[in-house]
This record gives sequence, structure tokens and C-alpha cells, in this order.
Amino acid sequence: MSLATDTATLGVIDELRALLGDRLSTAEAVREAHGHDESWHLTEAPDGVAFAQSTEEVAAIVRICHAAGTPVIPYGAGTSVEGHIQAVRGGICVDVGGMNEVLEVHAEDLDCTVQPGVRRKQLNDYLRDTGLFFPVDPGADASIGGMTGTRASGTNAVRYGTMRENVMALTVVLPNGEIIRTARRARKSSAGYDLTRLFVGSEGTLGIITEITLRLYGIPENISSAVVPFDTLEGAIDTTICTIQSGIPIARIELLDDVQMDAVNKFSNLEYPVKPTLFLEFHGTDAGVAEQIAMVQALGADFGAGEFQWSDQLEDRNRLWQARHDVAYACKALRPGCEIWATDVCVPLSRLAECIAETRKDLAGATIPAPLCGHVGDGNFHLAFVLDPNSREEMAEAEDINERLVNRALAMDGTCTGEHGVGLGKQKYMRAEHGDAIEVMRALKAAIDPDNIMNPGKMLPPRN
Amino acid sequence: MSLATDTATLGVIDELRALLGDRLSTAEAVREAHGHDESWHLTEAPDGVAFAQSTEEVAAIVRICHAAGTPVIPYGAGTSVEGHIQAVRGGICVDVGGMNEVLEVHAEDLDCTVQPGVRRKQLNDYLRDTGLFFPVDPGADASIGGMTGTRASGTNAVRYGTMRENVMALTVVLPNGEIIRTARRARKSSAGYDLTRLFVGSEGTLGIITEITLRLYGIPENISSAVVPFDTLEGAIDTTICTIQSGIPIARIELLDDVQMDAVNKFSNLEYPVKPTLFLEFHGTDAGVAEQIAMVQALGADFGAGEFQWSDQLEDRNRLWQARHDVAYACKALRPGCEIWATDVCVPLSRLAECIAETRKDLAGATIPAPLCGHVGDGNFHLAFVLDPNSREEMAEAEDINERLVNRALAMDGTCTGEHGVGLGKQKYMRAEHGDAIEVMRALKAAIDPDNIMNPGKMLPPRN
Repeated sequence: MSLATDTATLGVIDELRALLGDRLSTAEAVREAHGHDESWHLTEAPDGVAFAQSTEEVAAIVRICHAAGTPVIPYGAGTSVEGHIQAVRGGICVDVGGMNEVLEVHAEDLDCTVQPGVRRKQLNDYLRDTGLFFPVDPGADASIGGMTGTRASGTNAVRYGTMRENVMALTVVLPNGEIIRTARRARKSSAGYDLTRLFVGSEGTLGIITEITLRLYGIPENISSAVVPFDTLEGAIDTTICTIQSGIPIARIELLDDVQMDAVNKFSNLEYPVKPTLFLEFHGTDAGVAEQIAMVQALGADFGAGEFQWSDQLEDRNRLWQARHDVAYACKALRPGCEIWATDVCVPLSRLAECIAETRKDLAGATIPAPLCGHVGDGNFHLAFVLDPNSREEMAEAEDINERLVNRALAMDGTCTGEHGVGLGKQKYMRAEHGDAIEVMRALKAAIDPDNIMNPGKMLPPRN
Repeated sequence: MSLATDTATLGVIDELRALLGDRLSTAEAVREAHGHDESWHLTEAPDGVAFAQSTEEVAAIVRICHAAGTPVIPYGAGTSVEGHIQAVRGGICVDVGGMNEVLEVHAEDLDCTVQPGVRRKQLNDYLRDTGLFFPVDPGADASIGGMTGTRASGTNAVRYGTMRENVMALTVVLPNGEIIRTARRARKSSAGYDLTRLFVGSEGTLGIITEITLRLYGIPENISSAVVPFDTLEGAIDTTICTIQSGIPIARIELLDDVQMDAVNKFSNLEYPVKPTLFLEFHGTDAGVAEQIAMVQALGADFGAGEFQWSDQLEDRNRLWQARHDVAYACKALRPGCEIWATDVCVPLSRLAECIAETRKDLAGATIPAPLCGHVGDGNFHLAFVLDPNSREEMAEAEDINERLVNRALAMDGTCTGEHGVGLGKQKYMRAEHGDAIEVMRALKAAIDPDNIMNPGKMLPPRN
């Protein structure tokens, strides 16, 4: 444990060791590994890491911490990107990664219940024989608990929605160690406040999620993917906007700018044209997919689309989407030894072209590369600053560009983060986005976690 | 005003009259009209009715009530059915029915912002020229504010979701008179607690909703409706379940039992077979709808479907759905002079057939008629007890059947109300449904409305 560990926390560690034995670790390597996510935010190690195995055990851990006023930080897979799990005030990291069982699959109801440590890919592997799948796909092989905590979305959200729409119910350990269930398995309910949605996106600040009931979908009869380059960014964006406005139920529509395509080609050994490019996927019956494709091709032709490269075989599709999902690594490979600072915003679709154009103009004068890609069907896009985190100049430059990006999105009635969450990185924009509504958020936090032990220092900015 | 109006409330009424002039009424007829919804719950008139015209005016009204600790009850169209607006502790009814402007339509973003008094049909009339529509359709021509407050859904929810999925952002006057905006117009966001979903379904207990931003959808190229009778209830339900499980994007799939069909025939002068019947609607392209229809007809054939009667002309479709929406009046006409006690539950789809069969068995021994219909694609169905509210025996019988119905739904992992809300009528089931999570709901209520002035006595049951 760190030198700074206080007496109360030392007592907590003793109690937790009595409860968990070897599954309470204070080894430096373990604490360091749990002190950071995949962001540029510096490691801040917890005083101890508790590896929990059940809801009841999580509750027992939280009760011990609650009695001592010791901070509790839930940990799933560590794939978040805004500094969600840094132990900024010390305390105990509760690693639920080992709680990774699929508890129930109700194929006939199109739902399942999983433990929080279940990974996205693991769940879909498990489901394959049922003919069902879980669509939310943030790229990283994140844990379902973490995806719930950050209200994750990703490539399929344009058709299937985000975690907000696809979490049906939760089991949660509250900050006082009590266990609640937020809802039943009915598809809809008007029976009281929507506790499920309150915990989805709460970033571990209201409790620890220990079970998640998810909506599932039938694997479509036909899945077809394509890559299509455009002469201009505007052409790609206008094709996206018209596709959505036409009500075409496209499953994925992803934009990568020329900088990003160059990085992808180099990293994945591909030879796509270095142009603004859409990655597309269509789900449906054979006839339905054929109809969707014809409509999108017609729209693309109006906006300067190049040749569509089709992949309707699973292996080809996987290669295509792997390249899309590897953009972060591709970006990193642009400057060996550098790190990625990933940021995202989301704006109304009508403002997307303008927002991206202004952002690209801003980037034109930058010294650091920042490939742009995004889930443009939702109006959501990302920048990945490729920088040396030890360079004050580069960090300051990224910070400036990021601030201008967020302010631009907010001025367009957009949000400072479409899917990454607030963590540490977006706190300073919360008041600009929410105004006095931030005080309602503070009141909710205080009502559920009056001692502020759950992931303290995250999401809600410090009072001025 | 009532004889019981206390001194503090008299002072509030004076202040409100100074603010609103004639738009503050204490006339008995006005108070009585605002003291009940469309349910069997007895009228409980407020002490005064304030007809508000703007968000700022609502805020001023609430500030005056807040200072005096006077209850505030928001009122839209009065079409709720579980006793949502009865002034059980007196106070001021704030009628926002006159705030009925469509404020903004962003056709290119598929959204609009409306005042709470805008009616469902009014909004769709307004939108017609844009080629867009708002799908949530609870049958009644409810106000959008009221639909938001009760988390309404209805016939289209199986495809388009409920108010939960279709409200993007709200302007809310909090119990202290402050005004907040719960979200931006971005399609998705991970920036903080989901305040929008907290207020959707809060039944006026957390504040008064004064603006609602809604998702819109393109009017489909092809809309086709059909009515199809079945020899057995099981056949109709199994057809529904298979349709949903097959992922057919059906827009409406409504079940009416034989008792209900008899009532509909008599009331609407129709000659449908008096059998368990599905009312269906398909939305899509011409080819897409043809494909969906072929799939559902094939499923129906497996389960004893009779002849499909098709309506693809607007006028025919309107007549068909008017008959469906008139079921409440049709039920009422079964016993002239009687009232309707409407109740609803929602269960996982796999339990629907069993839940309905057991409910029908229970009804077989009843002395009061209770037609059954429902949004079966969501696992949601209604009973309409047709009874004499002055008969203690009939009320007691309905109460017993209702209690068994709710307990049956809860035992199947369902909810005590899929779409009507809690109001007064379902309070006593909240603990059975939510367990200790009810204490979290109480904490949220206390955090936002510490003086308990917003629609007091509703939704959350009294502490034991």
C-alpha cells in the first residue's frame, strides 16, 4: 500500500483481508495496474484491490468501507478512456472482473442476465448457439459492467441504441452495502422512478453494479458490410445524414477521415484509398438488405462516393471491423512511443458536417496528429491526439483543441461526450453543458451516497 | 374553494390571483373538473386551479406554493387512469393545457420541442407536412406532458418504444421554482446522470415539465393494417410471440379477446367474428411490408389464424384503429350507467400466454364483465372492469381480481403497471415489486422535493 494510507484505511485492509484472504491485494504491481484506465490520465493507485466473487461479497466489502468512510472504486476491464478508475482519493478498488458468468439466457424473451465482469465478446461467443446477439459494441472488449457504468455505445448504436436502451434491469450494491434490484424483466413499466437509467452512466459514483439484464436480438439472416471512399468529407457526411433521414435501418455507418485511413492502412497492412471513408453494415432479410444497399448506393452516388468494397462473408467482415476497431492502435503507431488522448463529442445530425469541418480547420494548424473517426449516424465523433504525455507543449495543445471542440459541440446543442463518459477528463465541461441541472445531479449523489465514498472525485466537478 | 382550505393556502391563492388574475380559479366547477382523471378514483378537488402560460409563469407559481408549503399538482389533459391528479392533500392544480405550442421542429434531426399541453393528435397534424410523425400512441388524445409524466406507451411501442425511449430532453420547473434543462439535443450522451429518464414517469412528483424534446420518425412509405381472428386465445398469443422472436419489425400487434370483440362490434357497429383477434400494422417500404406480411401470415397459419382483413387506405386504417382505441367506450356501453376500472400489467413475453390464461380463468367466475385487450408484443395487457362504482360488492370483486392479476404478473418477473402508472391505484403494490429499492426512490424524492409539495400522496406508498 502507499505510504499515504491512513489509519482508517489500514483497518479496512485488515478487515478485508480477513474476509477475502489472498483476494485482497496491496501488492504495488496490482495496485498500479488498477490505478489507471486506457487514457492519458496519470496512474493513481488505490490502497488495496479487492477481487470480489459475488454480489454478497461486494456488499460485505462495501459495508466495511462504508463504516470507515473509505473510498470504493469499481473496476471491470479497465478499458475506459477519461480517467474513470484512478483512485484520486485512495481507497479500495473492487475488481469485479472475476464475476464473469452469464447467469441466465431467456432466449424466448430476448434477454439475458450477466455478471459485470463478462466481456462483450465473451457474451456474444456464449450466445452464438442461441441465434441471438448483444449489439452494443464500443470497439474495446470492455466488461458489461463498465459499459453500463459509462453508458457505452459504439458502432451499432445507430440501429440498436446504446446501453441506455439495452439495459433492462440491474442488481446494485448501494454505498451502504444494501442490495437492490432496479427493475423486473418486463419490456416496459410505469411503476415508479427509472432507477435502471439512473445507474446506467453513473460511472461507479452511486453504487457497484453486480448483475445486468440485457436486451438481445436475433442474429440477422443477412449481414453485409462495405467500405466506400469519398472525394470529400462533406460527401461522406451528407451520405450519412441522408441515410438516417431516409429512415434506412442501417446497422453501422462509421466515418474515418483521410488521416485516419492512412493510419489504418499502415497499421493493418491494407490498401484502402487515403480518402474520407465510410464503413457500413446492413442487417436484415436478404431482400431487406438488398433494398437498403440500393438506397444507400443511390445516395452515395449523389455525393461523390467511390467504389463500394463488399464483404458478406463472416471472415471478411471481421477483418474489416477489426481494422475499424484498431484505429486507436493505428493512431498510436503513427508516432512510436507516443500515447493517445481520445476525446469524443456528439451533436445534432444537422450540425455534424459543420462541426467536423470546423474541427478539421482547427486541426490544420496543430503540431500533433489527431485522426478523426466516428459513429456519424448518431452525430458522434472522436479525435485521437497522438502525443508525448511528457511534453507539456503537446499536452497543452491537445487541451486547447479539446476545449475548442467541446465548446463547439455545446454551442451546437451537443454534448461534451457522446459515449466515453466524464471521469476526470470532462468534469470541467459539466457546468457549461448542464447549467443548474448539475445541482440536481449533486442532490442525487448526496441522497444515495451521503458520505461520498463511491468513486469520489469523478463525474461531478468540484464546487467553485 | 373548499371549506377546508387553510390559511396558508388562502394566502397562496391571493398571491396567485395577483400574478394570474382570472387565470387563477377557485370556482367549484373548475376545481371539481380538475379533481379527477378518467379513472374510478373519486374526485378530490384542489383548492385552486392556476392556468399557466409559460415556463416562467409555472416557475413563479411553484415559488409561491413552495414558500407556503402548499401542494402543487400538474395537470395536462386529465386522461390518466390510476388517480394521478386527485388533490388528495388539497393545494393548487397547475393546468398547463393552455401551453400547447409546438415550439421547434428540426426535421433534419428528426426531433421537435413542444409545450406540455400539446396533444398527441395535434402534434401529428402539425407534423404531417414535414413527412414525419411521433409514434407513441396510448389511444387517448393525451397531452405530451402527461404522457411524459406517466411514461406512456401504447400500440406503437413494440416497434418505436415508449416515452422512455422517445423523450430526448426536458425543461422542468423544480419544486423550489428553479428551471433546469435535463439534456441537449444530441442523440446520445454519457455526460452525467440521466435526468431526462428520471423525470419521465415521475408522475408530477419531482417537478413540472414545461418543454419536451421528442424523437420523430419518417412516415413510412407503406402502412398496412389487418384484423385477424383466431380460434383460440393461445393461437393469437403464440403468433404474437413468434412474430417478436423472429425479429419482424411489426409496428402494432394488439390482442382483443372475444369479450372485447363483442363489445367493439356492438359499440362501433362492426361485424368482426366474436373470437380472440389480433389487430396488426406493418410499416416499411412496399417490399419490406410485403415481406413482413408474408412472414406473419405464415406464422398465423401455424396457429389457427382465420382470414386476414386488410386495410391499406388511410381511411380504412383510421376506422380500424378508432375501433381499437374506442375499447374503453365499448366496454362502458356493455353496462349503461357503469364505469370502467382499467388496470394493466406487463410480463416477459414467455409468460404472457400463461398469465392471460390464468387471468381469464379467474374472470370466468366473476360477476362483472372485464374485457381483455393488450399491447401483446410488449407482454402488456389490460383488463377493463365494467362496474357500478357505488356497489361495494362490485368494487371489492374488482379489487380482488386486480390484486390477483398484479401478484400473478409479479410472480412472473413482471410489473404491476406497464404503461398506466402508479398514481393512487397501484401504490400498494410498489413494495412487492421493488423491495428495498423503494427506499432509493424515497431518497430521490426527498432530495429533489424535500418539502413534499409536488403531487404529494402519489406513486410512493405511505411508510408502514
